Amino acid sequence: MKLASLKSGRDGRLVVVSNDLAWCTDAAPVAATLQAALDNWDELGPALQALADSLEHGGMPRERFHEHDAMSPLPRAYQWADGSAYVNHVALVRKARAADMPESFWTDPLMYQGGSDGFLGPRDPIPLADEAWGCDLEAEVAVIVGDVPQGASREVGLAAVRLVMLVNDVSLRNLIPGELAKSFGFFQSKPASAFSPVAVTPDALGAAWKDGKLHGAMEVELNGKEFGRADAGVDMTFDFGILIAHAAKTRALSAGTIIGSGTVSNRDAGGGPGKPVDQGGLGYSCIAEVRTVETLLAGEAKTPFLRHGDTVRIEMRDARRHSIFGAIEQTVAVTGK
Amino acid sequence: MKLASLKSGRDGRLVVVSNDLAWCTDAAPVAATLQAALDNWDELGPALQALADSLEHGGMPRERFHEHDAMSPLPRAYQWADGSAYVNHVALVRKARAADMPESFWTDPLMYQGGSDGFLGPRDPIPLADEAWGCDLEAEVAVIVGDVPQGASREVGLAAVRLVMLVNDVSLRNLIPGELAKSFGFFQSKPASAFSPVAVTPDALGAAWKDGKLHGAMEVELNGKEFGRADAGVDMTFDFGILIAHAAKTRALSAGTIIGSGTVSNRDAGGGPGKPVDQGGLGYSCIAEVRTVETLLAGEAKTPFLRHGDTVRIEMRDARRHSIFGAIEQTVAVTGK
Repeated sequence: MKLASLKSGRDGRLVVVSNDLAWCTDAAPVAATLQAALDNWDELGPALQALADSLEHGGMPRERFHEHDAMSPLPRAYQWADGSAYVNHVALVRKARAADMPESFWTDPLMYQGGSDGFLGPRDPIPLADEAWGCDLEAEVAVIVGDVPQGASREVGLAAVRLVMLVNDVSLRNLIPGELAKSFGFFQSKPASAFSPVAVTPDALGAAWKDGKLHGAMEVELNGKEFGRADAGVDMTFDFGILIAHAAKTRALSAGTIIGSGTVSNRDAGGGPGKPVDQGGLGYSCIAEVRTVETLLAGEAKTPFLRHGDTVRIEMRDARRHSIFGAIEQTVAVTGK
Repeated sequence: MKLASLKSGRDGRLVVVSNDLAWCTDAAPVAATLQAALDNWDELGPALQALADSLEHGGMPRERFHEHDAMSPLPRAYQWADGSAYVNHVALVRKARAADMPESFWTDPLMYQGGSDGFLGPRDPIPLADEAWGCDLEAEVAVIVGDVPQGASREVGLAAVRLVMLVNDVSLRNLIPGELAKSFGFFQSKPASAFSPVAVTPDALGAAWKDGKLHGAMEVELNGKEFGRADAGVDMTFDFGILIAHAAKTRALSAGTIIGSGTVSNRDAGGGPGKPVDQGGLGYSCIAEVRTVETLLAGEAKTPFLRHGDTVRIEMRDARRHSIFGAIEQTVAVTGK
């Protein structure tokens, strides 16, 4: 089953979307919003699935689905907790600034509490008041969970996964060092993220959802040029079950909580830093990583962070090259400030 | 105007509460939940105020208001961002562990992103799976804001304050050093917080709301014994306008965002660390601070962190000793784990 929230008010209007993303049907008879569906999933999930089955078989009134009409599936959420499960990415970034990485990073997940009061739509501009803040994209996978009890195991966590999405976790790189030095974590350096137009249930992903990971190439384009295609199922040190259990260690998680994977990153086949796509590599899922590789190889970073007018596209396709979640496509824009 | 959310489902049932906290009336004709009211405050705020006026003048059907029937005013929220505005507290804690405090802490607010997907009710137990985690209370002030544009000034931030509350920001002290060492901020060390039974509009606070600060003694009891009575309006280095502007520097804040003050803390009159209440001092708003003072004076901390069965009470009274927000009163309980 695929779900989307069409633009309407603060929480959108929930629709069920066909597997090929061509059609949708109003979910209002079941739930007006995605959060309302998640709040009562045991009852409403099957009813939404019945709508999806009817839509797939042409038994429902339907309308064309246009990705640019979609908000993020949860236009605002009660929790957005983002992990950093591709430890290769962390190791590379640390290596570039000659900082040691504690051995525990390979066994104890990193996770930060993100802002969730208002997400960007998948085709909304990225508002950036000041280019000097060093705006970066981060292509990630995220799941929406149901209620998770405190102290949940990996298995309980995995069973609570309701929907899977892609994310552009926008980061302001040049604000990060100052915030981390204050030791309270990210705040100003993590403005609103954007999620894929469509959220997909694990069962509808087939073989692409396995072992608590989403498998497939994270296709990232920067200004229309191929920038990354790392496989989200590879080099993910902590699967979503482990990330959810980590988040639930000292407190319950409420339905509608979003858990992120952190920036997707694959090790280079030769063991060195990853190569750009045009040199036969898998490229990158964020600019910070290519800058890191440039620093390691040439002594300095040359790829600039995002500037006003730059466009980012993030998408994942199935074996037949059909888009699974729809595309996040955003242009960096000046804000009113 | 005073508002509360009586226990009902995930979001409670909004009621308007009389100034003396004795009575309440159903707000459903205006808004079913506090979040719904905040989403459309320009229209619904005045309608709620009209209900409050009628309640005060006996012109409404009314029921007794019982604080123990209340959830936190926002039982779950889209954002909980907690500052650390009483820099004296930070300076003391750092002094005790012989860590330098950067001079910038006096001019650049500390703020962390807290979990907001499910708050404890003001009379709910504090679930604590493991006493070794070092459970602490933190008595704080918090405000709920309306929509705040990115880049808002202090004045715009202050004008967006809709409601004021008290908070018990539960902290797991012994998990903090490990999390801060990972540099991603608090996560497992900050389980669910609890807010006062009643949220109050700034105008209803009269002289107690001035210069973007709540003025009055934060009365904290531990196991029925007076523990703290620091004045929330004193030694607050950053007022709520500054905290809101800090939070909004790189992104807009959505209606229903909660901004916290951090643990209330007053300097000792003599310039030294604060004395306990039974020694004529103003006491403390968290256990970490008394442990810090004990460490500075006697070389080691002797007050233990919270154990199962311990009870915490947080309240503020007006000049006639009437409770303004109702009381947070929580007992630490074992969880199912």
